[in-house]
Amino acid sequence: MTATLDLARALIARRSLTPDDAGCQEILIERLEKLGFRIEKMRFSNVDNFWARRGTASPVIVFAGHTDVVPSGPIDQWVSPPFEPTIRDGMLYGRGSADMKTSIAAFIVALEEFLANNPDHPGSIALLITSDEEGVAVDGTVKVVEALQARGELLDYCIVGEPTSNKKVGDMIKNGRRGSLSGTLIVKGIQGHIAYPHLVKNPIHMVAPAVAELATTEWDKGNEYFPPTSWQISNFNSGTGATNVVPGHVEILFNFRFSTASTEQSLKDRVHAILDKHGLEYDLEWELSGKPYLTPKGSLVAAISAAIEEAYGVTPELSTSGGTSDGRFIADICPQVIEFGPLNATIHKLNECVGVADIDPLKDTYRLTLEKLLK
Amino acid sequence: MTATLDLARALIARRSLTPDDAGCQEILIERLEKLGFRIEKMRFSNVDNFWARRGTASPVIVFAGHTDVVPSGPIDQWVSPPFEPTIRDGMLYGRGSADMKTSIAAFIVALEEFLANNPDHPGSIALLITSDEEGVAVDGTVKVVEALQARGELLDYCIVGEPTSNKKVGDMIKNGRRGSLSGTLIVKGIQGHIAYPHLVKNPIHMVAPAVAELATTEWDKGNEYFPPTSWQISNFNSGTGATNVVPGHVEILFNFRFSTASTEQSLKDRVHAILDKHGLEYDLEWELSGKPYLTPKGSLVAAISAAIEEAYGVTPELSTSGGTSDGRFIADICPQVIEFGPLNATIHKLNECVGVADIDPLKDTYRLTLEKLLK
Repeated sequence: MTATLDLARALIARRSLTPDDAGCQEILIERLEKLGFRIEKMRFSNVDNFWARRGTASPVIVFAGHTDVVPSGPIDQWVSPPFEPTIRDGMLYGRGSADMKTSIAAFIVALEEFLANNPDHPGSIALLITSDEEGVAVDGTVKVVEALQARGELLDYCIVGEPTSNKKVGDMIKNGRRGSLSGTLIVKGIQGHIAYPHLVKNPIHMVAPAVAELATTEWDKGNEYFPPTSWQISNFNSGTGATNVVPGHVEILFNFRFSTASTEQSLKDRVHAILDKHGLEYDLEWELSGKPYLTPKGSLVAAISAAIEEAYGVTPELSTSGGTSDGRFIADICPQVIEFGPLNATIHKLNECVGVADIDPLKDTYRLTLEKLLK
Repeated sequence: MTATLDLARALIARRSLTPDDAGCQEILIERLEKLGFRIEKMRFSNVDNFWARRGTASPVIVFAGHTDVVPSGPIDQWVSPPFEPTIRDGMLYGRGSADMKTSIAAFIVALEEFLANNPDHPGSIALLITSDEEGVAVDGTVKVVEALQARGELLDYCIVGEPTSNKKVGDMIKNGRRGSLSGTLIVKGIQGHIAYPHLVKNPIHMVAPAVAELATTEWDKGNEYFPPTSWQISNFNSGTGATNVVPGHVEILFNFRFSTASTEQSLKDRVHAILDKHGLEYDLEWELSGKPYLTPKGSLVAAISAAIEEAYGVTPELSTSGGTSDGRFIADICPQVIEFGPLNATIHKLNECVGVADIDPLKDTYRLTLEKLLK
């Protein structure tokens, strides 16, 4: 048994179904206070968050993560109970073991080891811990970031402990995420009997050339880290069901997955310009479901890549694929944000687990990264 | 009371809900046999039809109509019972009074008057009466026409007694009808997650330029009698409902209302050519729900127009508007087909009626037309 495994087990044993922290953060706070961190609890609505910082100088390096977990699913389909951490065949089983209580345990023990050897380190070390990442994510990281931003507290580096590894631990770092921007478009025509075409305005006919143009528009070419922005319609529905009636409107749901070569505003403006050019009468509601962010190659990517090579003997690949994470919020106040953590194969599934042998190298990776950045 | 009104009442009193003739045709046959018509009953499936002809020479002038009626709807909302012909405030009420038992009564009495004065008329006079016009119309006029066609019996003029008058009796003759050609188009793509656009083929995007081209294609310019052919999509549906999935196919229902400047085959060929040009993978099922027909200005239009002027003091307008009628079937073996009858304001509605004062002029119109064509 190691200190990181012990702490991971203690956290997994707490049934912290999102957004309930179930006491996880108190365990962390107790350890951090002993290390000289100044703790700031930030509870918003029913969500526990805290900000912990040691030091006042720059650079500021932050470990970010969440104590909440997704529901277990049918408990009788778990080999061992989801909130009873269990080691079996070299794996640590339990809800949150991969996403992301082991990462948080590794943060803490990495700090303990680093501070034992570097009590007077330069710069500052901080933790941003939320219990609202798996849920609606409105009273968690985003609110803490707003509070820090409001008082002008700027960060330099952030490591999010999300499970980013793909086939073996260490093979993938996320250095950004695409944005996701959705639209609900209603195009209006004039309904009527199909036998009297001079009395109708068919909205399907009217929107077709605009859809054709939107579908073939090159929004950007992407960049070194992102594929080109893509636009896709997911749903197009129009018609009364009757075959002799021209419908009065069309509803189209579409979505951008966008690179940092475009912005939310530039995409909105260009869609409106195309719709307007085609003379359409329409309503369009936008929803930004995820901002993009990107951390180009630089000191943070270099440090953690080298740390991974040292700890796991693996050369990590940079990736911006997959869904969204809290990294998108932190990137607002932090120029370099990366995500690195355990294998993601079992996250959100039954019998979530991490390899026991992969746990201490994770702690070492975080500690080595600290050593490289704060020397 | 007049002979035509009497006969109309006798026919309305028979509850001939489509396709049940309810004995109407026996009444007509009895009268026609007295006039020297040779009667050919043509029962197909459960539908009574008959063909009656007097004379063997050309030209052959045919009166065509149906004895069946549509259901009455809620009887308690009729002021008088739908199958009890009732005169009230100068109107004859009853289901079928306008569509089209009064026209059939007018046919018979017109023939009686004409033959009393012209027992040795030139040419031939015929009647084509069905009891399957208001229903599926598969065992009625179309089958009688097939039988006549099979034995090479050709017609010269046909007057269909449909209620064509619009604001006042005599104001409109139908000298043709547009065709109706429908298509069910399935365009195929490849379904997948919206975040992985390189793995999908979005059928909405693929079909959009083809729809844009179809919607702006000039199919024809129409002609003197028809407006241009129109193409309209009635229903366009695609999508799984989920906003993160690109759907695997699109279903489009469309309809042509087409003039005689195009043909069924020319329209099909042009749609396929456009879909193929856009490289679409698709299935397309066609349904011809109504053939077009047209009777240009000529001896029949001239004769009935003059007759209407004489009987009603009204100059009729030619029109090809509205839905389909049995005229489309008869046009296959008859170069000149027109439709003329009472006001259509109350047809298929509650309290269907015709003006009593309009009944004898209708009989006169048909008789005068005979006199002009068979002299």
